[in-house]
This record gives sequence, structure tokens and C-alpha cells, in this order.
Amino acid sequence: MEQNLWKHIIAVRQSSPLVHNITNFVVMNTTANALLAVGASPIMAHSHAEVEEMTSLCQSLVVNIGTLDDYFVDAMLLAVQKANEQKKPWILDPVGAGATSYRDAVLSQLLAHNPAVVRGNASEILALAKANSTATKGVDSTAKSDEAVDAARFIQQKYGSVVCISGETDIIVSQNQTVFIRNGNALMTKVTGLGCSASAVIGAFVAAVAAPAEAVAAAMALFSISGELAARQSNGPGTLQVLLLDKLYTLSEQEFNDSLNIRYA
Amino acid sequence: MEQNLWKHIIAVRQSSPLVHNITNFVVMNTTANALLAVGASPIMAHSHAEVEEMTSLCQSLVVNIGTLDDYFVDAMLLAVQKANEQKKPWILDPVGAGATSYRDAVLSQLLAHNPAVVRGNASEILALAKANSTATKGVDSTAKSDEAVDAARFIQQKYGSVVCISGETDIIVSQNQTVFIRNGNALMTKVTGLGCSASAVIGAFVAAVAAPAEAVAAAMALFSISGELAARQSNGPGTLQVLLLDKLYTLSEQEFNDSLNIRYA
Amino acid sequence: MEQNLWKHIIAVRQSSPLVHNITNFVVMNTTANALLAVGASPIMAHSHAEVEEMTSLCQSLVVNIGTLDDYFVDAMLLAVQKANEQKKPWILDPVGAGATSYRDAVLSQLLAHNPAVVRGNASEILALAKANSTATKGVDSTAKSDEAVDAARFIQQKYGSVVCISGETDIIVSQNQTVFIRNGNALMTKVTGLGCSASAVIGAFVAAVAAPAEAVAAAMALFSISGELAARQSNGPGTLQVLLLDKLYTLSEQEFNDSLNIRYA
Repeated sequence: MEQNLWKHIIAVRQSSPLVHNITNFVVMNTTANALLAVGASPIMAHSHAEVEEMTSLCQSLVVNIGTLDDYFVDAMLLAVQKANEQKKPWILDPVGAGATSYRDAVLSQLLAHNPAVVRGNASEILALAKANSTATKGVDSTAKSDEAVDAARFIQQKYGSVVCISGETDIIVSQNQTVFIRNGNALMTKVTGLGCSASAVIGAFVAAVAAPAEAVAAAMALFSISGELAARQSNGPGTLQVLLLDKLYTLSEQEFNDSLNIRYA
Repeated sequence: MEQNLWKHIIAVRQSSPLVHNITNFVVMNTTANALLAVGASPIMAHSHAEVEEMTSLCQSLVVNIGTLDDYFVDAMLLAVQKANEQKKPWILDPVGAGATSYRDAVLSQLLAHNPAVVRGNASEILALAKANSTATKGVDSTAKSDEAVDAARFIQQKYGSVVCISGETDIIVSQNQTVFIRNGNALMTKVTGLGCSASAVIGAFVAAVAAPAEAVAAAMALFSISGELAARQSNGPGTLQVLLLDKLYTLSEQEFNDSLNIRYA
Repeated sequence: MEQNLWKHIIAVRQSSPLVHNITNFVVMNTTANALLAVGASPIMAHSHAEVEEMTSLCQSLVVNIGTLDDYFVDAMLLAVQKANEQKKPWILDPVGAGATSYRDAVLSQLLAHNPAVVRGNASEILALAKANSTATKGVDSTAKSDEAVDAARFIQQKYGSVVCISGETDIIVSQNQTVFIRNGNALMTKVTGLGCSASAVIGAFVAAVAAPAEAVAAAMALFSISGELAARQSNGPGTLQVLLLDKLYTLSEQEFNDSLNIRYA
């Protein structure tokens, strides 16, 4: 079923949701700016003494394990439990899933608290599924891209999360539908933390939009189209990072509709 | 009494004060760049093993509680005590005052060490005054904007600090004068940490200028005018963040005088 | 002996080395972007639970003590030991050497693990040599710039590291040769963390190039020339930071050869 995604972009701009982020040091500044650019209000706080109170103040929570350590992980666990208790959606960005056994152990702990959305690249989603599958064969498939979709479906079914595989084509797997968005530009992979920023923006959209799968599709469409249009005016990754923020802020309905390359399955 | 604020901008550029910052993770990079752009030299250090030695090397100290935790708070307390012992000015940026009880408790501890300057937005200054007033009625007033000025006056009188309420109009409350600066641009609220950068720049000015209230007025005028001129050339928050740094670095006396919109009361 | 440095720039772009960074909070974002712009892949991780595993995954390690504390220092020590065990090169950026006794003590511990490369400014290299010399006179010399070269030579001989003194002229001291590169632009000192970014880029080059001294020369030449060309198009430090990333990504062999100002001694 086709969706009117533009109205969700307007909903975020108008409702300006407060988004609690427990994220990595590399991207704190850039994800806060991405949230502001789409019309949301970012909060970053991790002290155990206040992290639950902060989650309570916000409409959604984004957990990103990029530069995790034990203190941050405990803060994340406190926050996701509070979010679930208050029926607020939370987003998991499994940065570097599969890279170390510590990451995989932490991710299993977090997944057990049923994130509303998981967003990662294909290798992260594959690693997540593999580490959390009890089947001896784990998740497998013949074709590489199909494999990631199967992994996403596995996570979706086991934890109830909408799963977004970001890449050249962004794939959003929910219970009833798979959405494919082909926007963006390869130069975006040369700017650090754009995946993390996409996850933060998803946090804003699930706060403002009732249907999580549509919220994720709208967030990814906005982000990828803004990156694609910004890349056309960029001379490299430095200008792209700057112009992407401008475009997230100024993107018009006309630009959005003219650019959107989406397919439903 | 009208002040020649431009000479203070020159004083900072020429003396290049060393400013110790214990600040939040979101803005460490951008505040360091703001300090460099106005001609100061930033130092960021928080280890208990060296934080007092770092304060001793610097001409002023900026404390910003944005992403506070117990370790950082203890570092802040060590540093402000050293600053006071050495009669160096320190600036408090009470990010998120009133949002959690932890923040309010930490702010009370910090305020007790009498910052030379407190800079926050209206709601932060109101929350600070409310949490530190023993009067049963607390700070109150009929009009909202007057209320923040009353709160600032309360903090000024109780702790001896110059208090700056930043917003559409920046209001600087000192013992003998209230200064109103109407520069800046609404787009500045869409870039993360510009308030934090303003506080850091105040740190440079109180290090280089003997009179704290004039130092704060010069810092806020420089910052707001630079933002206002940068916004005219910006296409969104991304370019604004970049062009603001350029303008802080290049602003001329002519541009400053042509733009300054200041009122003394 | 003159070197073909351009081929090393191509080698990094083609091999895309994975570089593990344990660095300071101020520059995590900007150094990650610098690494991406030169074609490398950055990893930032510091948890004791995974830091050795991360080093094992990477081709080199960059250790930068800018905002050090005990937890980060222990992570650095775990990582450098793992790097040495696996014969992977590691780079030391001694930010603020000489500023506090804590920094000097930590730097002595790190130096004892024989970094492949040390990069700092003249005062940092001088402080390093002074703190680690047992001679009563320490390192001394009549002329200031000669003094830093003597200090670099002392560190080179004692620890076997290639030592890079960055400044108006970048000086690279190895066992058999001293290389002088006169590129760059004074505006680069007004952007925070460009020295840290240079160290990170060196990390990418020593991972991809067998000869460490040539790797350092190629990295510094690329970085300084990119800064020099970017500065010509910049209106201040804000645009410089952005355009430097663009230039690191797009620099051509023609631009490189036309700009390179290098001398061997």
C-alpha cells in the first residue's frame, strides 16, 4: 500500500518532538544537528542519576552503541526499560555489530527489550541476526542482499521491531510490508555518522507518527533525498555534511515528490 | 552608561587568553572552534589527576553541565575551587536546569562557588532561581520575560554573578545595570550548542577584560552580530554553523558598529 | 633520497586501511572525517572489554591523549600492547605534553611501548624529550627550531620512532633522513584538532605503506597541501575546516606535484 510520506515530515516539523539520545561520542554533535534540522529537539544525557528522568521527559529514545562502555551500556538499559514502561518507542542503532564479542553481548541484552526500530547496514543486521539466532544454521540465504533481508525478517519476527537496512537501497522490513527506497548518493559513505544521524531522525519520526513502519520510511526518504540533493551541490564530503543539514531543514514537498524513488513489496 | 565594546573584542584578539573548558561532549569541537575564531586558545581537560593544574595554567574557566556525570561534576568542583583560590573568573552554563533533580542539585553545588558569570536561556535562568530560592513564593512575576529578568536579578544578588539571559534579546544583568542586545537570527536556534559557544566566548572575554559586565556584553554582541551576518548568507543551519565561525574571525569594527542594537537600563 | 610520495596517497585510497583510534572527545568527529576523506576507514572504541579485539581487527592504531583520563589511558595501554604483539604500527599524538605532570607521566608509559610514529608541535616534542631524558642538561640547543629537531632526534634514537614536528615547516626525523615540508597555511591553526587529524591520517598511511618515514612524509604532504589549497578558497576557519575535507578527498596528482615544497637532508 502506497503511503503519503510527506505528511509525516510536516508532522515532525510541526510537533517538534523531544528525542533522548544515548549515542556515541563521534556523532553527538552531528546527530543533534540533524535532529534540529528536521524540526525535532535533541537531548543527550547518560548519567545514571538522571537518565530515566530524561527518558520520561522525551517522546522517544535513540540508543547507539558506537563508543559503548559499561557505564553507557548501563545507562542505555535503564533508559530502554523506562521507555518500555512508559510505552515510548525506542530505536536501536547496532553500530559495529559482529565486530567484537562485547558488542554482540550488549546487543543481545538490548534487543531483549524489543526496540520499536532497528537500523543498521547490511553487515550489522546480518551479524545481529546471526548472534541472536539459536538455529544451528543461523540465518542463511544464497544471495548476499537477500541474506540481509532474511536477517531483517528474522529480527522483525523475533523482537517485533521494524528493521531498516540502510545502503544503496534502504530496505524497511515490517510485519506486513517491505519497502525499498533508492535515493541517496555514494558520497554519503565518506561522511562519518550519517547512518547514526539517520537513526536519530527515525527517533524523531516514530515520536511524531503513529505507524512505526511509515515513520521509518518517511525518515529514510527525507534523509536519503536530502543527501542526494546536497551531494549534487557538493565538492566533497566536507561540503556534503554541511549542505545535508541545510537540505534537511529546507526540503520542499515538490523536491521530495520529484525525487522519491520508492517501491513496496 | 554606554560602553566601547569593540575595544574588548580587540583585547581578546590581541591577548589570546587561555580558556579551560569542562564542557559537554556534544559541543566540545564547536566551542573550541568558537574560541579559536575569536582569538582565544581553548583547553579541554577533565581528569581529576590534572584538572586543577590545567585551571592554574589558564586565565579563565568555563563549566557547562550539558552531558554531566559524577566524574565530570567532581572535576568541575575541583576546577572551580582552584579558579576561586587563584581569583580567576569562571563561567557557569546551566544547560538543562530544571529538567532533572540531578541537574538542579549539581547546579546548587556549583553556584555556591560564585561564578563570575552565569549564561543560560530564560527557562534555565528561571529554573536556577527557583531551585535556589528559599522564599516560599520563590521568584515570581506577572510577565514571562520580566520573570526571567527578576530571576537573573535574584541570582545576581545572591551569588554576585553577572547573569546573561540569552534569547531573541540577550539581557545582561549586573549589579548596577541591565543591558539589552537585540542582534542574532532565529536560525541560530537550529544549530546545536550555539548557547554553549556563547558561554565559552564569554570565558575568553572575562579573561581579557577587567569589568565582567562589559566583557559579557562585548562577547554577546560579537556572537549575536556574527550570527546575524552569517545567517544572511546561509541557506540553512549547516551553512550557518560554518559561516558563523568565519564571521567571528573576520568581523570588522565597521560591521560591528553598523549592526549593534544595544540598550542600557 | 627523493621519494615518490603520490603513490602512497594512491595506496591509501586503494587499500582503505582500517584505523583504530583512541582519541580525544574534541576531535573524534573531525578525525573520523579526515580518515574517510583520505580513503581510510576509522574505528573509535575504548571499552576495556573490546579494545584489544578492535586493535586486532585494524591495520594500525592512533593514540591521542587530548582529553585523557585513567580509563582511557588503560585502554590505550591495552591497545598499544596488542598492536606491538601483532606487529602493527601505532602512532602517538602527545597533545599538551609538558602542560601537566599527569600528561608527562602517561606519555612516559606510552613511549615505553615504542610508537612507530610520534607527531606533535615543537613545544610538545620538546616537552616529551625533556621529560624522558635522564641527562641532567636534558635536551638543549642554541636556536629554538634546532632545539625541537634535537629533541625529535633524541626521541627517534631512544624509542625508534619516526618523529614529526608539525608547524609552519613540518619536519620528519627518521634514522637516516630529515625531511622538511613547507606547505600549509597559518589559518589552519585557527581550526581545532587539525594536528590531531594529521596524526590520524599518518595512522592510515603507516598502515598502507611499508616504509614509515615515507608514509609520514606522504601523509603530512597530503594534509598540508590540502590545507593550503583549501585556505585559498576559505573566508575563515569555518569554511577552511569544510573545504579541507573536500580537498583531502579530491586532491589530484597534478595539484599535489605543483604544490609540494619538500627538502631532504
